Amino acid sequence: MPKVMVVGAGAVGAVTVCKLAQRPDLFPEIVVASRNVTKCQKLTEKHPQARIIPEALNADDVQATIALLQKHKPALLLNLALPYQDLPLMEACLQAGVDYLDTASYEPPDRPLYEYSYQWKYHESFEKAGIMAVLGIGFDPGITNAFVAYAAKHYFDEIHYLDIVDCNAGQHGRPFATNFNLEINLREITQPGRYYENGKLIEVPPLSVSQDVKFPEIGVRKAYLIFHEELESLVKHFPTLRRARFWMTFSDSYLMHLRAFMNVGLTRIDPIDYEGHPVVPIKFLQKLLPDPATLAPDYKGWVSIGVQLRGVYQGKPRTLFIYTNIRHEWAYADCGSQAIAYTAGVPPAVAAELMVTGVWKKPGVWNVEQLDPDPLLERLPAAGLPWKVVVDYPLDFIDVPE
Amino acid sequence: MPKVMVVGAGAVGAVTVCKLAQRPDLFPEIVVASRNVTKCQKLTEKHPQARIIPEALNADDVQATIALLQKHKPALLLNLALPYQDLPLMEACLQAGVDYLDTASYEPPDRPLYEYSYQWKYHESFEKAGIMAVLGIGFDPGITNAFVAYAAKHYFDEIHYLDIVDCNAGQHGRPFATNFNLEINLREITQPGRYYENGKLIEVPPLSVSQDVKFPEIGVRKAYLIFHEELESLVKHFPTLRRARFWMTFSDSYLMHLRAFMNVGLTRIDPIDYEGHPVVPIKFLQKLLPDPATLAPDYKGWVSIGVQLRGVYQGKPRTLFIYTNIRHEWAYADCGSQAIAYTAGVPPAVAAELMVTGVWKKPGVWNVEQLDPDPLLERLPAAGLPWKVVVDYPLDFIDVPE
Repeated sequence: MPKVMVVGAGAVGAVTVCKLAQRPDLFPEIVVASRNVTKCQKLTEKHPQARIIPEALNADDVQATIALLQKHKPALLLNLALPYQDLPLMEACLQAGVDYLDTASYEPPDRPLYEYSYQWKYHESFEKAGIMAVLGIGFDPGITNAFVAYAAKHYFDEIHYLDIVDCNAGQHGRPFATNFNLEINLREITQPGRYYENGKLIEVPPLSVSQDVKFPEIGVRKAYLIFHEELESLVKHFPTLRRARFWMTFSDSYLMHLRAFMNVGLTRIDPIDYEGHPVVPIKFLQKLLPDPATLAPDYKGWVSIGVQLRGVYQGKPRTLFIYTNIRHEWAYADCGSQAIAYTAGVPPAVAAELMVTGVWKKPGVWNVEQLDPDPLLERLPAAGLPWKVVVDYPLDFIDVPE
Repeated sequence: MPKVMVVGAGAVGAVTVCKLAQRPDLFPEIVVASRNVTKCQKLTEKHPQARIIPEALNADDVQATIALLQKHKPALLLNLALPYQDLPLMEACLQAGVDYLDTASYEPPDRPLYEYSYQWKYHESFEKAGIMAVLGIGFDPGITNAFVAYAAKHYFDEIHYLDIVDCNAGQHGRPFATNFNLEINLREITQPGRYYENGKLIEVPPLSVSQDVKFPEIGVRKAYLIFHEELESLVKHFPTLRRARFWMTFSDSYLMHLRAFMNVGLTRIDPIDYEGHPVVPIKFLQKLLPDPATLAPDYKGWVSIGVQLRGVYQGKPRTLFIYTNIRHEWAYADCGSQAIAYTAGVPPAVAAELMVTGVWKKPGVWNVEQLDPDPLLERLPAAGLPWKVVVDYPLDFIDVPE
């Protein structure tokens, strides 16, 4: 089997490497490249049974990435770096003729707007080059897209309503901590909520729309309507969708802390003078918060992510719920990770298997729902992410009876 | 009339100087001394009708204070500096033979414990020197003590239960700001609640006891049991008191912010490393918050402070409420101040009148309730602090029917 190359060795990248390293039959050699080569070396030490080759790489530097691809000649580049780096890495893959996958859509550094348009533009050139790119194959986006494709393939003639529901009911034992970068957490709650209805993108004020949602094993939690990037590709690829929304739970305590910080300017990104030294409030705040990686050992409880669907099958209305529930403890036992990083980091490793073995082989740039969901979802439980389908599920979102 | 000397030119000191400056008949010359002489000079400019002499002084330096007292020979030193400076200033007054007043009891810098014992020790030496010290003559402590003394003198044979109630219902239009130093605000909510019952000091966890209290003009607010220094002297001087408590309102939003800051270590006083520079979190947070002095122009609404009493008069149970209600706008119109600084800064100026005119003339160290409350309370409304007595008041604290 050929080499693969992972770019990025953060919390999610570490999970992907962990899962790749568990399958030496499929991935005998794994190059791990990061700006911080020490992080790559730590992964080498963590997985002594695997052959992991650490490399230093600035993923913004297209020529440096091409040189590394030419050196190692991997069959696939797995982009687990930052969303800002999707375009330089795709460009490098195109020029080096290497397949590509990532877990989050590109966003321009200067404006926080997820949008697939930048990456979709690469479709024809990837197609001509005979190489394949899979976009957004984490959990959400990623498995959520596959859930919709799976439902469309096996359970519906037409899907009309989609609600993606995401709940982290885990407890890390700290009064306040973020599961990943503070700025990205803040963006979720400060961005307007956006959803698609009748072909239009509708915007509502940040966290202004919420609803109680019942999550398996967890119970009822307050979920807020936020924008999430898979909505954009799903309404494009399932044009029968009349409405598509994304809901995420935030605890009152979590929101209370973030709001308090925002209210006094602790989330400002401009430096203020402190005894003659410029101090950027959000960076200072980040220093006070626990490193997200340190939360994993103590993290307990469930994470539940699923899609609630409403549509028709053989002329009759049908509702469906497909979801994954996993516990933080399971993620820690498997890869020393918390479940948020784990749910995002496992799917790219499974997708890598499908790509290097040719199960998914289709030149061009694709979102997950454009590929056959069956081989992906079949392999998911063994990789650590069980999932379940419930037909005629009593939906939480009953405001649009069919 | 003789000179007086004010030490301290902060928000409260500025109000005291404003009130002294309004009475050139009583206070023809006012020395204002502060570590920061610029603050004193600003007060000179603010009150051109008065003769204000600015002086630089480190109030911790007893010899420097004695020298300044010998230079100006004031009849009275008004201590509006920090509570840490009560003892050096009393010592300087004792050695220079000058009367003294302050608004807050001494506390050792290393442990945040208000206690009168340090200052009461000066009683005999002041008595022998033929000079007078009045302790804690702000509003609370100060006017609250006088309210109790007034009630005892005119309305009760015995007072059994005392509840001091303090509500700032003003709005400053900021999501979060403190009315004075952030550390002192934090101390109020992080200290255990303490109150006296049957001769014992009882301690409860911080903010663990609260009760709805109805404030005149304001309505019902949630008030928390906290310790306040006048309780210590009042139970000593009114030994018939079976219970004495202090209640202060805090809005949910105020507490939410302070708790969020505490939870992530933003109130830590030890420096943490930020890009090679030591940054003390609480000092950095203070820098982000609005300067308390800047709140005054926008501050609107009521402040209400009073004492609720239960006891007996002529063999029958009686309840009484004595309180002051003032608006932030009134304080601003009179002295360019917000009402919190105003209620604390006006009483020392009225007490200064009583002391320099010999109405209060009694060598020794005294708490306010040991002096005749009538001349103090008589002068209060004209000085900007109206007050009212309600007999047979329906108390909020009905858990101890007589």
